[in-house]
Amino acid sequence: MSLFKRTHTCGDLRLQDANKKVLLVGWVHRVRNLGSLVFVDLRDRFGITQVLFDPKQCSEQVYTTAKNLRAEFVIQVEGVCSKKLTANPNLSTGEIEIIASAINVLSEADVPPLPIADDTMEVNEELRLQYRYLDMRKGPILNNLVVRHKAMQSTRNFLSNDGFIEVATPNFGKSTPEGARDYLVPSRVHPGHFYALPQSPQMFKQLLMIAGLDRYFQIAACFRDEDLRADRQPEFHQIDVEMSFGTTEELFPIIEKLVSRVFKETMNVEISAPFVRMTYADCMDIYGCDKPDIRYGMKLKNISHIAEKITFPPIQDVLKASGIVKGFCIEKGADLSRKALDELNAFAGQFGFKGLAWIKKTAEGYTSSLAKYMAPEVMDAVSTAFKMEIGDCALILAGNKKPVNQALDHLRRKVAKERGLVDPKKFACLWVTDFPLFAWNEEDGRLESEHHPFTSPNFEDMHLIESDPLSVRSSSYDLVINGYECASGSQRIHDSRLQEKIFSILGLSAQSCKERFGFFVEALRYGTPPHLGIALGFDRLVMLLCGAENIRDVIAFPKNAKARDLMQEAPSPVPQDQLDMLHIRVRH
Amino acid sequence: MSLFKRTHTCGDLRLQDANKKVLLVGWVHRVRNLGSLVFVDLRDRFGITQVLFDPKQCSEQVYTTAKNLRAEFVIQVEGVCSKKLTANPNLSTGEIEIIASAINVLSEADVPPLPIADDTMEVNEELRLQYRYLDMRKGPILNNLVVRHKAMQSTRNFLSNDGFIEVATPNFGKSTPEGARDYLVPSRVHPGHFYALPQSPQMFKQLLMIAGLDRYFQIAACFRDEDLRADRQPEFHQIDVEMSFGTTEELFPIIEKLVSRVFKETMNVEISAPFVRMTYADCMDIYGCDKPDIRYGMKLKNISHIAEKITFPPIQDVLKASGIVKGFCIEKGADLSRKALDELNAFAGQFGFKGLAWIKKTAEGYTSSLAKYMAPEVMDAVSTAFKMEIGDCALILAGNKKPVNQALDHLRRKVAKERGLVDPKKFACLWVTDFPLFAWNEEDGRLESEHHPFTSPNFEDMHLIESDPLSVRSSSYDLVINGYECASGSQRIHDSRLQEKIFSILGLSAQSCKERFGFFVEALRYGTPPHLGIALGFDRLVMLLCGAENIRDVIAFPKNAKARDLMQEAPSPVPQDQLDMLHIRVRH
Repeated sequence: MSLFKRTHTCGDLRLQDANKKVLLVGWVHRVRNLGSLVFVDLRDRFGITQVLFDPKQCSEQVYTTAKNLRAEFVIQVEGVCSKKLTANPNLSTGEIEIIASAINVLSEADVPPLPIADDTMEVNEELRLQYRYLDMRKGPILNNLVVRHKAMQSTRNFLSNDGFIEVATPNFGKSTPEGARDYLVPSRVHPGHFYALPQSPQMFKQLLMIAGLDRYFQIAACFRDEDLRADRQPEFHQIDVEMSFGTTEELFPIIEKLVSRVFKETMNVEISAPFVRMTYADCMDIYGCDKPDIRYGMKLKNISHIAEKITFPPIQDVLKASGIVKGFCIEKGADLSRKALDELNAFAGQFGFKGLAWIKKTAEGYTSSLAKYMAPEVMDAVSTAFKMEIGDCALILAGNKKPVNQALDHLRRKVAKERGLVDPKKFACLWVTDFPLFAWNEEDGRLESEHHPFTSPNFEDMHLIESDPLSVRSSSYDLVINGYECASGSQRIHDSRLQEKIFSILGLSAQSCKERFGFFVEALRYGTPPHLGIALGFDRLVMLLCGAENIRDVIAFPKNAKARDLMQEAPSPVPQDQLDMLHIRVRH
Repeated sequence: MSLFKRTHTCGDLRLQDANKKVLLVGWVHRVRNLGSLVFVDLRDRFGITQVLFDPKQCSEQVYTTAKNLRAEFVIQVEGVCSKKLTANPNLSTGEIEIIASAINVLSEADVPPLPIADDTMEVNEELRLQYRYLDMRKGPILNNLVVRHKAMQSTRNFLSNDGFIEVATPNFGKSTPEGARDYLVPSRVHPGHFYALPQSPQMFKQLLMIAGLDRYFQIAACFRDEDLRADRQPEFHQIDVEMSFGTTEELFPIIEKLVSRVFKETMNVEISAPFVRMTYADCMDIYGCDKPDIRYGMKLKNISHIAEKITFPPIQDVLKASGIVKGFCIEKGADLSRKALDELNAFAGQFGFKGLAWIKKTAEGYTSSLAKYMAPEVMDAVSTAFKMEIGDCALILAGNKKPVNQALDHLRRKVAKERGLVDPKKFACLWVTDFPLFAWNEEDGRLESEHHPFTSPNFEDMHLIESDPLSVRSSSYDLVINGYECASGSQRIHDSRLQEKIFSILGLSAQSCKERFGFFVEALRYGTPPHLGIALGFDRLVMLLCGAENIRDVIAFPKNAKARDLMQEAPSPVPQDQLDMLHIRVRH
């Protein structure tokens, strides 16, 4: 047998290959020793092929070797592809088997610490992460990595064909603390100096526009030292895009085609474009959040004007305190049991609400938690506002605008999920535009950028920028898919004076501004083209493509929730002389 | 005019576009105000287009705006594409000009600190790096970045089509000090612990093979804290490839096709494959080095056996001390002047040689620096050994093998360069194979890996591994292009016991081995497929493609020779509270 070679993968062979002499390599998935015959399921990434060792058809030495195989041995097998008497419909190769004539054990294997052939056994995630390379052999994660790869290829080919140039921006930059924490790298050559790993290539991509590159992209590694959650990793990837000249009228169709292409080429899913567009203000109004899942209805409706006539004292109190009364209608929701409504009520309670009101419209009339506080004509008015049909149920909350929106958003998602209104095969894309330029940081008592300080104001609102900055809209946009924020971008400021004004409104002193962004503000002064861009969360996109619920399932070697690599055991202590060279010491 | 829009780039328009109404955007490259007419050269990455502002053909306001333009303003121009009376043959758009009817100044510009339109002015590199984004506007670096992008695309498409899956391996790994220094990242969550940035994804890619991925690649960022030289940067990129099953017979053709494809698709250069193969031993013999430029001849010849008859005492001393006499023949080299030979002699002196001997063969007979020490038949024998023709000149050195090889290698390169023997349009690729497995580290008095500790020995030499390790060849290979090492790879060890033995021969204690590579050696135990791989220096490859002599010219935002980013001013000091959070302090 030619060393290490194969003629086919373990997923290749079909009935039409019968009688071919073949060479396969792979892992022993299962061995069944029937005494007079040995069956081996041979596995690789492409499939499983059954191999039969029959002492009548191979040498005794080959048969003995086969008898002594154990799970996860790596072997090379020579044999003839033959039609099976009984096909195995669960395998793509199930119509054939290999009648082995020779075998070569390429690697033996100890008993693995987690089962590979047995799908039924639950393995805790710590062990799976420690033995990531074995967990991958089970299939799903490798499959996700292949999808990830295809999505990368698809992205790169699409953008390249559209004139975008991929440029690698530096991983060693300057620390400009804001937003998330930087990861720092001490310099050996410059004692007491540190590089920062990039939180995003934002300034670099804008500098490439200033340099005249015209169209840039990168699938960029980004680093943020944040407290981890289920969907966060210390490093993540984004599809980073920037273009000179043009507005969202040029950018949106490009991104829409990109997303459609990626879904089509990786999962064979059609996405319809152009995507729905909605302003941030409308979005908050209709969905109570800036990243709604629009695969299903249940739009929110503000009924404050009708609620004035609901005599329930708490509602009256809310309205007097400038609160709102808002809710949504569940189609065919009248079947919700008292228990189900109690659960929803408890759920609303998590957002600080004492009561979730409900109204059911039935053939016999209305039933409602507020029945005794609502005159028939008030009930009718509410029903009309929610466009209720017989069999529907409306849920209503009263309170301050922000918590009402937040709770209704979560209620809407919960109801959709529980009532099976979410089609997992559908992908609904939404542009949310015109976010506020600034947000108020309660903690520090100052304005901060809603997006980032390089975002252009909407020029229609420029007159308000000093008098009423919180009402100024920005030229920014998010792309929301199935209720997840998948991308975020903006038209950038291309005027150094406006950029300086924004920094000053954000309360950055001239000194601090110069230290942190001085070189960038200077760069804006030498002829900056109008430009805009976007960054798509690549890990999130791959999660959507794979239907994965955990970001770790779409990353080859992820960190756990404490930012540790359990396989390598990193981070780890390092010898003092290594720290000495870097001019640092650990502070105990 | 539609905001920020263009109908064409500044490199698009040709004679056949005459009479079209067009919108262009770009930078003012030059303005010539002729009093009654204003000519503007409008520039973008794609070209330069001449724009004419004629007060008879545009409003006064437009004309006044045009008169006040200065270099590097960003403008939008509307006008009609028209045939020029006198074409400019230096521009691809030179047959047309735009008769402007409207103008929109999108950005003004201060006078830039380095000239952009003036190619003749030398600008020092520090200033160029500080204003990288302006230096890019001059063209060459942007063009290199476009070539780099094409090379990336070409690589990815080729490998993807060949079944390789691109996987991003982690940037936060474990410090396993060896070879170059690690860059470290202090952990906030785990006080006193550090991540290391990857020097290469070596272990990860091998783990992906153990995981069953079958074929992997990545254009990977790698980090080494080395002292910088002209061709080094703290971070660099490599095309990292690994495949399971198969040997160099499978891998070499893939890499040959990859390299040919990249040269073809980026520079339209044909590279002939298969590449020449040569063992390390032969290579040292014939070229005196392991990365020869084989675009030209002048192969080295050991003439020690003839030199026994040369009566020059220093040569006799060398031979007695087991030294060698070696040289090469320069075709038509008899025209080398005494001055030129003196210069070569001085050059050899830099490598510790007191004298470079030479022999010229002319129609009148031999002339030689060794004439009086060589009998006519000895002269003939040497001439025959070097295959000298009339008009040739041989250069000869005597000494210990290593310095003789080193000096002859450099002499050969120098002679080739000076005599114009190097065809800059030719790309000659060479596989150098069978490197020694170990090298002797004089300083530490111990064996070290020539390639890296995961390299498989050549199994023919396994019996020598303990008795004579320095004579053991490895299953490793370099790809040399035009005298530069462009790639390096090997068959990997896939047997955990052999891997442990290699670590022990390298003098790693069981404890140290466990701490640094324990998880990896364990991984080898669970069924590791035979696998091999290679890493191509991507920056070096792009340098060859672009004909660049400095690595900084093929990187968007490079560091200077002291690892500083002069544009951002990184690395930099950071506030104490940031270090406090990371549990470190600067050691003064």
